[in-house]
Amino acid sequence: MTNNLNQFITDNLPIIESELYSLVEKIQAPNQLKESMLYSLKAGGKRIRPLFVVAVCHLFHNKQHEAYTVGSAVEMIHTYSLIHDDLPSMDNDDLRRGKPTNHKVYGEALATLAGDALNTLSFGVLARMDNVSAENRIELINLLSIAAGAEGMVGGQVLDIDGEKRSLNLPELEHVHINKTGAILRFSIEAGAVLSGATAKEREALVEYAHHIGLAFQIQDDILDIVGTSEELGKTAGKDVASQKSTYPALLTLEGARKKLDEHYQLALTALDSIDKDTSILKDFAQYIVHRHN
Amino acid sequence: MTNNLNQFITDNLPIIESELYSLVEKIQAPNQLKESMLYSLKAGGKRIRPLFVVAVCHLFHNKQHEAYTVGSAVEMIHTYSLIHDDLPSMDNDDLRRGKPTNHKVYGEALATLAGDALNTLSFGVLARMDNVSAENRIELINLLSIAAGAEGMVGGQVLDIDGEKRSLNLPELEHVHINKTGAILRFSIEAGAVLSGATAKEREALVEYAHHIGLAFQIQDDILDIVGTSEELGKTAGKDVASQKSTYPALLTLEGARKKLDEHYQLALTALDSIDKDTSILKDFAQYIVHRHN
Repeated sequence: MTNNLNQFITDNLPIIESELYSLVEKIQAPNQLKESMLYSLKAGGKRIRPLFVVAVCHLFHNKQHEAYTVGSAVEMIHTYSLIHDDLPSMDNDDLRRGKPTNHKVYGEALATLAGDALNTLSFGVLARMDNVSAENRIELINLLSIAAGAEGMVGGQVLDIDGEKRSLNLPELEHVHINKTGAILRFSIEAGAVLSGATAKEREALVEYAHHIGLAFQIQDDILDIVGTSEELGKTAGKDVASQKSTYPALLTLEGARKKLDEHYQLALTALDSIDKDTSILKDFAQYIVHRHN
Repeated sequence: MTNNLNQFITDNLPIIESELYSLVEKIQAPNQLKESMLYSLKAGGKRIRPLFVVAVCHLFHNKQHEAYTVGSAVEMIHTYSLIHDDLPSMDNDDLRRGKPTNHKVYGEALATLAGDALNTLSFGVLARMDNVSAENRIELINLLSIAAGAEGMVGGQVLDIDGEKRSLNLPELEHVHINKTGAILRFSIEAGAVLSGATAKEREALVEYAHHIGLAFQIQDDILDIVGTSEELGKTAGKDVASQKSTYPALLTLEGARKKLDEHYQLALTALDSIDKDTSILKDFAQYIVHRHN
């Protein structure tokens, strides 16, 4: 990780997490429900999605606090999707980031409801950003609803489960990832553009960047499942191979997957070149995603 | 049911259902996911919540189509909550309205995801109502997020599950119902007021009406569980007594519950008296809720 990116994360991560936790702590709800919601929010994670919202805002010299609020809304969606994905009827995972999954601690019923509540809360959080125009709030809510729902993340999850039953080809695999993980990453980056009043051309370039970063992120995930250790990953390594899951290395070989990863990395950088601003943090982010070990 | 209410339902139910189904049919999502979402939406139900949105709009001579859109959003929330409530880890119900529950047909994973997608879609549907001002859309999204989430319906569901482990007293029981079922009913009625530009005084009276109607609805539910037949109800009668659940009849006797029901009915009517409009449909609705057999 470059020094610049490191500094950016050191500066912004505490503000993101403080905003995220306070948005949940201040609601009036049964204690056990709040505790279960906060348990998964506080279980760590790289906070890549909120960091992207903030990074795009900073690209436009937009320092408004709402970048952290939008980032928190995205992290709530991401976290609810992990809670539900880990349920016995889905991936049946006992550990997440080295800690017991939500349903192992709170039971399946409360885990399901904590996920539901985080999903719902994210939209309320966006609606209540009084310093953002009602039009921009509506645009963000509309984009998040599409990115997180049947047309995005949830639809991708359905395709992913379906794909476990058969071999996917490369276009099918890309389609899964563009929806399952790409849609929310794209939202994070596009939301920064909406909050900052980016031009149509700038927004288009950022969406293009998001597309390639999203796929690069997933390819590296697949590669790490093969070359990483469980300790580094905080989850069981080698799970994809064991379950004969369709992955980039399985379809392209490990070398082919690394080549594909580099292609998307280069295309992400190229997209940024059309933006006449200091995009170094976004470039550093792209590099980090390609070289990360967990 | 009065002839007036019957006519109102005959006139509006087909428009509600057509809007509801078309909002889901037009999304771009995996077929099996859409099928699972539509299965539960089409499984029947009285559509009381959307009918309330429309009835309140008609009270203000507001005939805009968006009443049906908001009603559809509420019905999506209601339906997702039923899908998740029926899951094995929650109520573990095999039948709902006399038909197999969603997870019995599509499996638990898809049922969980169909619920998630309906939750998310409801907010997108509200955000995309181009004929409603951005300010009003934001207000509706904020109200729905509170009503449906940890501070409302989901919180109430947590309290309800918790209440199965011990005896609740009357204030605790009311607190469960005000959140679990009352919050969404209140939203339906308040949303009609927002869409129609009701005065603060009118809105307050409608919220008061909603409060009493919500509790009356729940008390009648508890009474029907004792005096109704499974055939009439489309679900197993006598389940509350068998599970020793805290209910109004259990706390107040059947006679006491009927008295409480009538009190809330009268208070709902009184609330409407302060509104200088033809509230006959809302009064008929109150009467129907008190006298319904299923």
